[in-house]
Amino acid sequence: MKQWELQCSRCSAKLPFRYQDMKCTCGGTLLVSYDLNHVAQTFTKASLGQRYPSMWRYHELLPIHDPAHIVSLGEGWTPLLRLPDWESKLSLKRLWIKREEQNPTGSFKSRGFSVAVSLLKQAGATKAAVPSNGNAASALAAYAGRAGIQAFVFIPMDCPSLIVDECPMYGATTVLVDGFIHDAAAIIESGRKDQGWVNVGTLKEPGRVEGKKTMGLELAEQLDWTLPDVIIYPTGGGSGIIGMWKAFLELKTLGFISGDMPRFVCVQEEGCQPIVDGLMHSLGGTSAINTASTPVEERIIPNPTGMRVPNPPDLELLLSIIKQSGGTAIAVSKEQIAQATHSLGSEGISSSPEGAATWAAMLVLSDRGWLRPTDSVVLFNTSHAMKYAKLGASAAIPIIRTYDEFMLYRSI
Amino acid sequence: MKQWELQCSRCSAKLPFRYQDMKCTCGGTLLVSYDLNHVAQTFTKASLGQRYPSMWRYHELLPIHDPAHIVSLGEGWTPLLRLPDWESKLSLKRLWIKREEQNPTGSFKSRGFSVAVSLLKQAGATKAAVPSNGNAASALAAYAGRAGIQAFVFIPMDCPSLIVDECPMYGATTVLVDGFIHDAAAIIESGRKDQGWVNVGTLKEPGRVEGKKTMGLELAEQLDWTLPDVIIYPTGGGSGIIGMWKAFLELKTLGFISGDMPRFVCVQEEGCQPIVDGLMHSLGGTSAINTASTPVEERIIPNPTGMRVPNPPDLELLLSIIKQSGGTAIAVSKEQIAQATHSLGSEGISSSPEGAATWAAMLVLSDRGWLRPTDSVVLFNTSHAMKYAKLGASAAIPIIRTYDEFMLYRSI
Repeated sequence: MKQWELQCSRCSAKLPFRYQDMKCTCGGTLLVSYDLNHVAQTFTKASLGQRYPSMWRYHELLPIHDPAHIVSLGEGWTPLLRLPDWESKLSLKRLWIKREEQNPTGSFKSRGFSVAVSLLKQAGATKAAVPSNGNAASALAAYAGRAGIQAFVFIPMDCPSLIVDECPMYGATTVLVDGFIHDAAAIIESGRKDQGWVNVGTLKEPGRVEGKKTMGLELAEQLDWTLPDVIIYPTGGGSGIIGMWKAFLELKTLGFISGDMPRFVCVQEEGCQPIVDGLMHSLGGTSAINTASTPVEERIIPNPTGMRVPNPPDLELLLSIIKQSGGTAIAVSKEQIAQATHSLGSEGISSSPEGAATWAAMLVLSDRGWLRPTDSVVLFNTSHAMKYAKLGASAAIPIIRTYDEFMLYRSI
Repeated sequence: MKQWELQCSRCSAKLPFRYQDMKCTCGGTLLVSYDLNHVAQTFTKASLGQRYPSMWRYHELLPIHDPAHIVSLGEGWTPLLRLPDWESKLSLKRLWIKREEQNPTGSFKSRGFSVAVSLLKQAGATKAAVPSNGNAASALAAYAGRAGIQAFVFIPMDCPSLIVDECPMYGATTVLVDGFIHDAAAIIESGRKDQGWVNVGTLKEPGRVEGKKTMGLELAEQLDWTLPDVIIYPTGGGSGIIGMWKAFLELKTLGFISGDMPRFVCVQEEGCQPIVDGLMHSLGGTSAINTASTPVEERIIPNPTGMRVPNPPDLELLLSIIKQSGGTAIAVSKEQIAQATHSLGSEGISSSPEGAATWAAMLVLSDRGWLRPTDSVVLFNTSHAMKYAKLGASAAIPIIRTYDEFMLYRSI
């Protein structure tokens, strides 16, 4: 076989790469498949140990073969921070948080777009478009800028304004959409042929999942080629879950790791929780909130986050990963997220609402006994708090001129 | 000698560490001095090659010896990104930008406070205070949070509000000061004894310079133990310049590097440029703007950056480094900074005004022929653009519902 091709995640049909809808005729999602025998010739633990700390250290497991096509801004090899105080408080064996906000665009989306834009460059594409709740748009904008490719980003109008503002800063044509992310996607599909856009939306091309996959490869290497028991991950379209699952399967085939897969926990926000609802439904239950029966248009969450994706592109694949791994899905409230932001802040961590949601989910799962004292747990902080900031929050901060005024303020 | 002690950078007097004003009786600044023969026993290129990519890989050259005292949030080993297109445009041998915004608190200040707060922990201190134009305050807040130390931050009231807001998020007591950074410093000095604060302001304790020093150590290692010809660095208090200079001296003594020091270029913003003015004065000239004769209170720059430090704690040391290295100092305007932010954005880089100022300075120095075709140049991007963001910037972004509306907008 060639060094890589596309393969259906459901029926295993194989076909060569071209830009196309990533759906197989059977309805499954097409993912990149590598010749792992070929990969194994150079991809060894010893070789990796000598490589530069970047996600491109895993280049044999990424679909770009000519280094000249790699579009990099310094992504990956983000810190995995241990939180020993909370291990004691929650009776966990280990607790880590993966600091994905330290990527070049301030979010985990850097990884997917480094690969997706490299693929565009390899293919000679000149224009790309993405529908996004924010961070994917700014990541496309940045990587396309670096590559000299024109970016067009379509963002629901109620998304965080600071993230929206980043897109024109990176030179992207930026448009707000009066609707949801799937409405933005529909606009791109309408204009795709006329405009010559490649649609780089979630699971619309193969690069983003491969980029997200490096989170799993890194995690395994940072844990000295072992896997955690539980991964708690904020989930919208789900490409991160699919990517990490794929990473662990590839590492198993290559003989790098063995044993059980981590239990994957998908975290969503109450009010837009198709994965939680889908899991309940598939297990024969009904969701407490039961948004599945609520028309999409009525599932309004004000100030949405990256988790607000009413129609994940391959819900079936996500549910299959959750169930195979012994994982679960959980929705948390805005109040729980706000409290978690505060808790993570007190630990010195600037967390996005999505990252904070994984903390909130951890607390619930710990309370319920779903997390066990033998569990090592990894949370993903996908972005900085500041990207979601609003001005005026500091209105309560006192203004002083002297130490006496400080004392006066403290005594109130 | 002990593994480290304090040594005056001017008269070379040595004394043991305690928290004190870091001024020697001769007026020089006290810096950390190591027993480099002892360091050389374990600090080797081969050993470093095996270590984790964090600034703590250089632990022998940092003043913390018990790993239990290290307060880390995942700082250092930031990417060094090459900009080949601009090498051609400007006729430079090499051009890199060091992406310091990828540190845990979104700025280069993480490095200094990781060491400073570790020292506080080692010393058993429970309260620390800092005067800051923003990013130092949020870094103290974050690292103190991680360490369980109470942080008190004093910030001039016209500093960027999003950075101010980060401080209470990390749990710091946060106060705005109607004045400059030295007015904030005076308030801390007034309350220091009463409140039991350790003042961790610039050059008020030895840890921050040592942390900043790791930028120099990393740069040398990332360039395979060579040095660039020119370092262009945004300069306020100047501890980064002093730290990198110290890094290169230590590496020379250890035999890791040889040859000329890089020419250090200090970049400031027009209107508050004591280093530029000081250099002109010491060379017998007068500054075009001549702020040196303007009372400090009148040197108002609206929306100040970290470069607005009217009275650097050791201007003499900074000028000596600039002159010894064959470097220079340059002030750029707000308009030049805005234009540079745009240029860096088009390359996919989110730059703070301070980082953008280094780009603006590079263009001027290239125009003047001060930068030569044989020069390899490193710029420092010290923080993310978004930390300085203002709401309302996106007011001009169109809102659409359909592809037809997109076409309509495009045709206008």
